[in-house]
Amino acid sequence: MKFNRLYIILGLVSGVSTSTISAKESAPKTTPVTQVMPSWNAAKSKAEILKFIENVSEEGGEHYVKPGDRIAVFDNDGTLWAEQPVYFQAMYTLDRVRKMAPQHPDWKDKEPFKSVLAGDDNKALAQGEPALIEMVKATHSGMTTEEFSASVRQWIHTAKHPTSGKLLKQMVYQPMLEVLEVLRNNDFKTYIVSGGGIDFMRVFTEEVYGIPPEQVIGSSIEVKFEMRAGVPVIVREPKIGFIDDKEGKPIGIHTHIGKRPIAAFGNSDGDLQMLQWTAAGKGPSLCVYVHHTDAEREWAYDRDSHIGKLDKGLDEAKAKGWTVIDMKAEWKTIFPEK
Amino acid sequence: MKFNRLYIILGLVSGVSTSTISAKESAPKTTPVTQVMPSWNAAKSKAEILKFIENVSEEGGEHYVKPGDRIAVFDNDGTLWAEQPVYFQAMYTLDRVRKMAPQHPDWKDKEPFKSVLAGDDNKALAQGEPALIEMVKATHSGMTTEEFSASVRQWIHTAKHPTSGKLLKQMVYQPMLEVLEVLRNNDFKTYIVSGGGIDFMRVFTEEVYGIPPEQVIGSSIEVKFEMRAGVPVIVREPKIGFIDDKEGKPIGIHTHIGKRPIAAFGNSDGDLQMLQWTAAGKGPSLCVYVHHTDAEREWAYDRDSHIGKLDKGLDEAKAKGWTVIDMKAEWKTIFPEK
Repeated sequence: MKFNRLYIILGLVSGVSTSTISAKESAPKTTPVTQVMPSWNAAKSKAEILKFIENVSEEGGEHYVKPGDRIAVFDNDGTLWAEQPVYFQAMYTLDRVRKMAPQHPDWKDKEPFKSVLAGDDNKALAQGEPALIEMVKATHSGMTTEEFSASVRQWIHTAKHPTSGKLLKQMVYQPMLEVLEVLRNNDFKTYIVSGGGIDFMRVFTEEVYGIPPEQVIGSSIEVKFEMRAGVPVIVREPKIGFIDDKEGKPIGIHTHIGKRPIAAFGNSDGDLQMLQWTAAGKGPSLCVYVHHTDAEREWAYDRDSHIGKLDKGLDEAKAKGWTVIDMKAEWKTIFPEK
Repeated sequence: MKFNRLYIILGLVSGVSTSTISAKESAPKTTPVTQVMPSWNAAKSKAEILKFIENVSEEGGEHYVKPGDRIAVFDNDGTLWAEQPVYFQAMYTLDRVRKMAPQHPDWKDKEPFKSVLAGDDNKALAQGEPALIEMVKATHSGMTTEEFSASVRQWIHTAKHPTSGKLLKQMVYQPMLEVLEVLRNNDFKTYIVSGGGIDFMRVFTEEVYGIPPEQVIGSSIEVKFEMRAGVPVIVREPKIGFIDDKEGKPIGIHTHIGKRPIAAFGNSDGDLQMLQWTAAGKGPSLCVYVHHTDAEREWAYDRDSHIGKLDKGLDEAKAKGWTVIDMKAEWKTIFPEK
């Protein structure tokens, strides 16, 4: 580690910890940097993130960005919470297939449903994305938006991870919760921009990440408005609408926010266009990849992974000097203690 | 006017003005109600709006709504600014046709462009909605999102109304600006939900209404993400995407906010489904129609109007006891003084 100016400013070099990062624009800037992002080792990524926040928050400074334009976007699966061995929403989908099976006797003889009902989830998932989409369409539609939310709400409070045994909602990354916090304390508006279902995520993002429904962008199925006995409802249709992945991410950001983010966090090639879009803004920007390097405490995967493949993105991050978080080396803890 | 409890509570009866409405949850509740919404006469609509705000803001009260759920949605054309003799965005569209004509020699012989270029806007507009959509597709696409915003930005600062001679952006309703203000001062998040173009409105809503781009919902054309010489751009396509009108409004709200509003303001049958959706929430709700009754200072139109038709909505508002603002009787001023 070089003892350059950056480290000294941020007090990240042992014995030099006088610098501060503001807790809130309006509040006195008194939180010592050593107390900010405590689950992070005092290494490169933490320093780069804090330096960026300091730069854009410094009124009169050359990199100053006014609070309303401090938009930070985060991928969800693999960036804010784990995504192995399958996306957690796939687990919900499989559970829904089992729960809805009595109303669909034909599923017993029809793949991929057949495999799920025979107890072989892996065989169902091995049929690839089209099979998963088939199950999503069948299990995420044919109900009102309120009925769907109620179903997810019930599920997320009890669903557990197949290998860790933890509640899925506890498999969020503590260091990333701390990034969300320091950004919000410095007047950033934090958004999720995920390939996952927008209505699926919205049920729990406020509780889990402090991100309200209106700051969640994701994939969606089509919906229609109708009156049922004089009561208006929004009904979910078995048709894929918007896919918020790859080229879809900048489009989702444009549609929902109408501003270009100045900070973007992802973990896979599916996030690359979002990072490119962020990096191409006129002012300062921060592009960050979470690199899964910790086979012991989490998972280690990148270029050849089926889920969360990080190949082109890793090359581009290195070429452009983006921040790449080495999970194993830089995160003191991965998941929240309790 | 009946001297009922409501008027007395709000201090709206002459000589009784001791009651207050909170300026901000966290601030002392010291703004006298007579200073709130000063462009309104002390009549029914003002009282109903303030009473609702007071109810949902009263901690521990039976109608209390926590700040994060205080979502208020506003139609734009005819609700926040004027919409006669044609929607203002149609004026932009016609100006664009004239400006882009040199690059489109075929327009000279092709309706509705032909009429516009021959100086007969009315003849072009008389060709109806399909003709207007044809012009919108031709003039709002084939450029990046940034180029489009720049075009609207330039236009909105100089475009004037054909009969009043005012800048269009000054033809906003002063009384509605005051409603936006009192809602925001009481921790409401204010959104625009309009049939107008989302990217058109976003250029000026922050300056004109104090509503940032991420709180604007509207109709859109399709866009695509692409790299141009290594620079990512979002390009507008000549295809209509989402229409944020009638049944589209609750869907736009669901997609962008993911919460049901508790207050909705409109002026036409195109807003009816948005008001129905708001009214059908579990807690308290406020549904308001702006009724154009002032032929002298603004325009008077409702059941038979081509633009801003208010027919079914007026019946439903009366049947359900929604607030109907009588513009002529209730608004002291219509447009801002300067």
